[in-house]
Amino acid sequence: MKNYYKLALERHGQWRGKVKVDLACPLENHDDLSVAYTPGVAEPCRKIQINPLEAYKYTWKNNIVAIISDGTAVLGLGDIGPEAALPVMEGKAMLFKRFAGVNAVPVVLDTKDTEEIIKVVKAIAPTYGGINLEDISSPRCVEIERRLIDELDIPVFHDDQHGTAIVATAALINSFRITGKDPADCVAVVSGAGAAGSSIVKMIKELGIGDIYCFDSKGVLSSKNYEGYNFVKREILSITNKKDEDLTLREAMARADIFIGVSSAGIVDADMIKSMKKDPVVLAMANPEPEIGYNEAVKAGARIVGTGRSDFPNQINNVLAFPGLFKGALECGATKITEEMKMAAATGLAYFVKDEDLNEEHIIPEVFEEGIAEMVAEKVKDCAIRSGHIRGM
Amino acid sequence: MKNYYKLALERHGQWRGKVKVDLACPLENHDDLSVAYTPGVAEPCRKIQINPLEAYKYTWKNNIVAIISDGTAVLGLGDIGPEAALPVMEGKAMLFKRFAGVNAVPVVLDTKDTEEIIKVVKAIAPTYGGINLEDISSPRCVEIERRLIDELDIPVFHDDQHGTAIVATAALINSFRITGKDPADCVAVVSGAGAAGSSIVKMIKELGIGDIYCFDSKGVLSSKNYEGYNFVKREILSITNKKDEDLTLREAMARADIFIGVSSAGIVDADMIKSMKKDPVVLAMANPEPEIGYNEAVKAGARIVGTGRSDFPNQINNVLAFPGLFKGALECGATKITEEMKMAAATGLAYFVKDEDLNEEHIIPEVFEEGIAEMVAEKVKDCAIRSGHIRGM
Repeated sequence: MKNYYKLALERHGQWRGKVKVDLACPLENHDDLSVAYTPGVAEPCRKIQINPLEAYKYTWKNNIVAIISDGTAVLGLGDIGPEAALPVMEGKAMLFKRFAGVNAVPVVLDTKDTEEIIKVVKAIAPTYGGINLEDISSPRCVEIERRLIDELDIPVFHDDQHGTAIVATAALINSFRITGKDPADCVAVVSGAGAAGSSIVKMIKELGIGDIYCFDSKGVLSSKNYEGYNFVKREILSITNKKDEDLTLREAMARADIFIGVSSAGIVDADMIKSMKKDPVVLAMANPEPEIGYNEAVKAGARIVGTGRSDFPNQINNVLAFPGLFKGALECGATKITEEMKMAAATGLAYFVKDEDLNEEHIIPEVFEEGIAEMVAEKVKDCAIRSGHIRGM
Repeated sequence: MKNYYKLALERHGQWRGKVKVDLACPLENHDDLSVAYTPGVAEPCRKIQINPLEAYKYTWKNNIVAIISDGTAVLGLGDIGPEAALPVMEGKAMLFKRFAGVNAVPVVLDTKDTEEIIKVVKAIAPTYGGINLEDISSPRCVEIERRLIDELDIPVFHDDQHGTAIVATAALINSFRITGKDPADCVAVVSGAGAAGSSIVKMIKELGIGDIYCFDSKGVLSSKNYEGYNFVKREILSITNKKDEDLTLREAMARADIFIGVSSAGIVDADMIKSMKKDPVVLAMANPEPEIGYNEAVKAGARIVGTGRSDFPNQINNVLAFPGLFKGALECGATKITEEMKMAAATGLAYFVKDEDLNEEHIIPEVFEEGIAEMVAEKVKDCAIRSGHIRGM
C-alpha cells in the first residue's frame, strides 16, 4: 500500500481546506448587489416570513446538508476532539458534492453532552435541509439520532449506523443472488454491537435472515449479560440469538453462512472460515485492517468476500449510499429517512449490478461508476412519496 | 428606482441558493479518495489531535467565517425568524467571497435566548476561523458579542454595530480633509442609540469629536431618563452630552457640524440642515429611505452628504469594511478584532481616496473599486501584529 499518510499530510497542508464556498449567482455591479442583496433581498425574506417552508424555494436550504460531529469516534482514532475531526468532515462534504451534487458543510461541536448536542443541532437546524451525524460514539449517537428524527422536520441520518448497513445489506442481497440460498435458512454472525452493528442487525433481520449471533468485545449478546447492556445492545439482543445461547465466536462461526464484521482487525482466522456452512459470505469491514484479510478469507474457502478496502474487490463503502440517499430526500422534500427508504436504497444498489456483471468479485457497484447516486435518489424518492413522509408546500 | 423586489423574488426562485459548496481538491479516482479521505486523512487528524491549532494548517478553518443570526433584526424588517433571515445571510456570504476571497456560510438560529445563543455559538466555534454576528436585535447583540469575544479565541464581530461605524468614521475623516475643520471643535448629532449608534458614538469619540448628542426614539440621551436605559444606552450617555442637556433634535442640529443617522426615514428636514454650523456633514444612513434625502440635504446647504444608497454619491456601505477586516484577521491569526484594528480599517478606507480624487461627491471608495479588501486586510494585520493579538502556532 502506498504511503497515503505522508501524502495526505503534505496535500492537506497545501489545500488548507478540501471544500470551499462559491457564489451561485452573479455579483459584478450595483444592479447585481441590489437584486442579490439590499434592497431586493427583502422580498424573498418577506415571503419566507409568511411561510417558512418557502425557504426551500428561495434559499440554499433545498440542497444543503450539515455534517455534524463531536469528534468522539473518528475513523479508528477514537475521541480526538472537534478540530481533529474536521479533515474527515471536510472529506465527507467532498463526497456529498462529488457523488450527488449535494452541498454539505462540516459542523464540529465543542461538547460531548447528549442533551447539549441535541439542543445545538436543533438550534442550527433552520439553516439546513438535512443533518448527517458523523463519528459520534455509541450509544450516544443512537439516542441523539432518534431524538433529532423525532424533534426536527428535516431528514436526520447517522451515516456510521446506517450507511454501512445499507451497503452491507446490498452486498448480502447480491450474495443470495449468487449462492441461491434462502435468507430464512441462513445464520449470520455480526461482530460489533455499536452504531453500525445495530443497524446491520436490523436491516438483515428485515431481509429475513434465519438467526443472527451478534458479538460485542466480551462475547455473544445473550440474556446472561443483559444488566450490563446499554439500550442499543438490549435492542439487538431482542432480535438475535433466538435460543439465547452462550457461544464463542468460533462456535457461532461453525453454524454461520454469513459473517459481517464492523469490529476489530484479525479476530477471524482461516479455521473459522473453513468451519462455516457451504458458500461462506464474509463481509469483514473493520478499518483499515479487516477482521480477516481478503486473500486469506478466499484461500480458506469463503465464496464471497467484501472488505472496506479499495485495493481489493467488493469494497463495502458507505459512499455508495449516503450521497444518493440525501439527494433523493432533499429533492422530494422528505421529512425523515425511514427504514423503508434505507431498504429501497440497499435493493437499488444490489440490482444496480446487472445479472451478467454479477459474480464473486463484483457483488456491489464500484464507487466511481456513474449514475449510482441518481439511481439511489430515485428509489428513495419513490419510497418517500409512496409512504407520504414528505412536507407540504 | 427599478423594481428590485420583483426582480429579486424571481431570481431567488431561480437560484435557490446564492452560495454553494465546491471541492477545493481533486476527487476523481481511488488514489484521490485515499489521500483526501480514508485512509490518508487519519494523518492530519492525528496532527490536529496533538495540537488543535494545526487545524489552521490542514483544514478550511484558516479561511471560513460563520455568519450567525437569530433573525430578530433583519434589514428594516424586524424579527422575521431564522428561515426568513437566510437570504440576507447568503447575500452576506457572497460579499465575503466576492470582495475578499473569504469563505463564509450562513448559520441561522432557532432561539432568541441570549444565553442559549452564546452556548450554541461556542459549541460550533471549532468549525470556523471567525464569527460574524448579523441582524441580532439590540441590546442582546452587544451582550452576545462581548461575551463571545471574551470566551472564544477566534475573531467575533457584529457587523451591524461596527461595520457601519467603521465606514461612517472613514467618511468623517475625509470630510475633515475637505472642510479642514478640527474634530475637537465639532459637535455631532447621532440619531440612533442601538447597535450601530453605540459603535458610531465610540468611534467618532475616539476621533476626538468635541461633543456628541445621541438620540433614541424618545429624545436626546441624558441622565433624566437614565433609569429607563439599557446598558448600551448608559454607556453611550457616559461619553456624550457633556453638559447633560435636554435638547430636541431640532435644537441639537442648530449646534451641530455633523449629523449621523442610523434611525428612521425622514426625521431630518431642510430647516434643520439650514440651521447647522458652516459646512454641514450629513451621513443619513437609514435604510432604504434615509433620514433626509441626498438631494434635499444638498439643496438645504449640506456640504457633504452620504447615505446608504447606491444610487447617490457617497454610499456608506459596510461591505467596504467587513470583508477586508476578516481577511486580515484570518490571515494573521488574530484572536480578536480590537478597537485599534477597526480604527486602522477606517483610516485606511479614508486614505484609499487619494487627495486628487477627494471631493464632496467622493468621500469614500466605491464598493467595486479594486484592492479595497486587500488594503483593509493589510492595515488590520499590521495592527494585530503590533498589538500582539495573534495566536501562536
